[in-house]
Amino acid sequence: MEFLVRAENRLPADTADDVRARLKTGERARADELRAAGVLKRLWRVPGRNATIGLYETTDATTLHDALASLPMFPWMDITVEAVATHPQER
Amino acid sequence: MEFLVRAENRLPADTADDVRARLKTGERARADELRAAGVLKRLWRVPGRNATIGLYETTDATTLHDALASLPMFPWMDITVEAVATHPQER
Amino acid sequence: MEFLVRAENRLPADTADDVRARLKTGERARADELRAAGVLKRLWRVPGRNATIGLYETTDATTLHDALASLPMFPWMDITVEAVATHPQER
Amino acid sequence: MEFLVRAENRLPADTADDVRARLKTGERARADELRAAGVLKRLWRVPGRNATIGLYETTDATTLHDALASLPMFPWMDITVEAVATHPQER
Amino acid sequence: MEFLVRAENRLPADTADDVRARLKTGERARADELRAAGVLKRLWRVPGRNATIGLYETTDATTLHDALASLPMFPWMDITVEAVATHPQER
Amino acid sequence: MEFLVRAENRLPADTADDVRARLKTGERARADELRAAGVLKRLWRVPGRNATIGLYETTDATTLHDALASLPMFPWMDITVEAVATHPQER
Amino acid sequence: MEFLVRAENRLPADTADDVRARLKTGERARADELRAAGVLKRLWRVPGRNATIGLYETTDATTLHDALASLPMFPWMDITVEAVATHPQER
Amino acid sequence: MEFLVRAENRLPADTADDVRARLKTGERARADELRAAGVLKRLWRVPGRNATIGLYETTDATTLHDALASLPMFPWMDITVEAVATHPQER
Amino acid sequence: MEFLVRAENRLPADTADDVRARLKTGERARADELRAAGVLKRLWRVPGRNATIGLYETTDATTLHDALASLPMFPWMDITVEAVATHPQER
Amino acid sequence: MEFLVRAENRLPADTADDVRARLKTGERARADELRAAGVLKRLWRVPGRNATIGLYETTDATTLHDALASLPMFPWMDITVEAVATHPQER
Repeated sequence: MEFLVRAENRLPADTADDVRARLKTGERARADELRAAGVLKRLWRVPGRNATIGLYETTDATTLHDALASLPMFPWMDITVEAVATHPQER
Repeated sequence: MEFLVRAENRLPADTADDVRARLKTGERARADELRAAGVLKRLWRVPGRNATIGLYETTDATTLHDALASLPMFPWMDITVEAVATHPQER
Repeated sequence: MEFLVRAENRLPADTADDVRARLKTGERARADELRAAGVLKRLWRVPGRNATIGLYETTDATTLHDALASLPMFPWMDITVEAVATHPQER
Repeated sequence: MEFLVRAENRLPADTADDVRARLKTGERARADELRAAGVLKRLWRVPGRNATIGLYETTDATTLHDALASLPMFPWMDITVEAVATHPQER
Repeated sequence: MEFLVRAENRLPADTADDVRARLKTGERARADELRAAGVLKRLWRVPGRNATIGLYETTDATTLHDALASLPMFPWMDITVEAVATHPQER
Repeated sequence: MEFLVRAENRLPADTADDVRARLKTGERARADELRAAGVLKRLWRVPGRNATIGLYETTDATTLHDALASLPMFPWMDITVEAVATHPQER
Repeated sequence: MEFLVRAENRLPADTADDVRARLKTGERARADELRAAGVLKRLWRVPGRNATIGLYETTDATTLHDALASLPMFPWMDITVEAVATHPQER
Repeated sequence: MEFLVRAENRLPADTADDVRARLKTGERARADELRAAGVLKRLWRVPGRNATIGLYETTDATTLHDALASLPMFPWMDITVEAVATHPQER
Repeated sequence: MEFLVRAENRLPADTADDVRARLKTGERARADELRAAGVLKRLWRVPGRNATIGLYETTDATTLHDALASLPMFPWMDITVEAVATHPQER
Repeated sequence: MEFLVRAENRLPADTADDVRARLKTGERARADELRAAGVLKRLWRVPGRNATIGLYETTDATTLHDALASLPMFPWMDITVEAVATHPQER
């Protein structure tokens, strides 16, 4: 099933550049894996914010949580999940 | 997977008694079916309100929507759904 | 550009069945046209609600408004629009 | 009576690993005791968050508070409690 | 245990005077019974509103709901309940 | 007149034990004085939180502020005050 | 003591002109009396709204409620009251 | 000074077409007058809504209120006003 | 024109006493000047909070901002401004 | 298309003066470039706050995000973006 996932990145503004760079690289690599696995289907930037909206597809909320928690930035992210149903027009 | 479902019943206070009674009977009957099918696992009353919190288990959000929409009171209910994941302590 | 569009349908619960049916048929037909035109890219059902989340792509907010206002249900819909930017991972 | 208890864990992201590990082990042990005592009946993970929703059963709100305050993570938890009533369908 | 109960009275402004009067008399009579039974311990008026805050004492949320639902104005009241615990200073 | 006073205690979780203990003892002592003076009439614990709801009686909001500001924990408390009126049933 | 009182007027837009005029005249007359009595000290219009903010002075919240409830528009007004204290700079 | 004015049009969806047309024509005519007078400087459509955001310039909030109340749709509009200051970059 | 100005003082609780004292003295002195200039007309304490509500009169929002920014506590204040219009009863 | 952009500046109150000055100078310079490029069309100060509302014009939300992220203060700004459509009166 699909989920819309809003993630605000709360990494402090004064984080050292190398820490930030390493986290960002790891984040990108893990996101690529989730895309390859069909878990992360789309990702948008919320304009003006260090935040994203993602469209995920997993078997259930437990698998979704494991996918999100596997992202290196997870400890600094404020995430809200919305389960969405298939619309009759797309069945 | 499991969902916590909060439902506020907005049936107008001036609804005719027989209409209300028929809806209530139908609601109970359909809820019994959903319980028998393992879809509705628990149901609580929100004290002081014509509202409930239910614990549902379905394969996904689409099946959940179909279950909720099958309740006779559905057109008057203001429903919010929260997908919940299994906690590691209960795996 | 893309927009996430949340639409709550406020059509009164006591609307006559034929009115509701006609509106629903017209809504479906217009949505199909918007899909064919590449304007409506995805549509989800918010579980438990007479509400949808749509992914639209138009040149700007003015064109988006015209597309939304062309839906027969528009006068009864409570719509909120969120402009989303392309994420660097998808550029 | 039963309570639904939402707990956001605000332990800072930069907490030392051993402190975090010790707190987590203690949390698990105390939760097991509360389960054995019939106080903690279910526990869900809020997907994407370091947060849980628990179903507790105690004699009253005072006993509930004592149970929650006995958890090692309590000083870092932002908790909201909702008292729920038995629904007529389950009496 | 004790509960703080906030009740907004949504009886329409254009309700006929005799209906309103009858409801008010019945409300007063039932409230007196709840006071005599030790269920309703205090009742405040929210200044400027047709609303009250009550301090109730019942064995649990289910009994509280039954008490509130026994008030003649109940179908028009928008009620929120907050379970409160005994403070150590008053044990 | 009476006031309902909600107080969230924001004392940081990492406050030294002796500082916390001294503040708590002083808080209790000052609260006892306010009770003896008829200013603090009831105090409840909000279950699951380091927070209280108090029923105060003072001549006006200025005197109430002075009473609250005299509590040693005041600098760390996030307080909201609600003025309540006597209900006709209790006049 | 003083109170800041925000009042939204919810009189329906389709109220008959003569009803509206009579209510308005009565409102003005009663407000003049409250001014003469020193109860209503200032009254502002919230720009763009059929709403006001008033500065009232009464002995307590009960007297304030009686003053507000004496206004002919009271049944249609959505009022919120904020008790304010004298600032040390004005003592 | 300038004001940002958000206006939601709450004219009921079932308003007769001729009433709606007459109001709309009057609204446009009055808006044109306010533009000519330099009072209404810009007007945006909120996409997906029967709502606008306007940039107004008047001497003060009282004059602004009079301008807004002169619009034929005013009785059905839910308006919020935000006073904005000149930014140093534009002085 | 007049403005109602709500100011929450966020000066940290652990600010050194002499810093706090100096800021407070400066704040009082500047407020006295604003009063003498007819800019600050009234000031209330929000009971239970390190917060105030002020009634200011300036020519416009830009002048108001300059007045508020001239207060020594300004960098620690969380301020919201509401423009108010003269009510017909006071014209 | 146009966007209304609200930006709260969260630069800590205890930031060193030279850091603040350098950021401010850079902010001004970059804002001037965005004005010259026709991207930043208007900028208002929110009275009483270290916050602004800007009117931007870019081809889409992605370009807008790049413009906002190019401002030196971006890491400390809490920004919300609202896409606005052209109103029929201005087409």
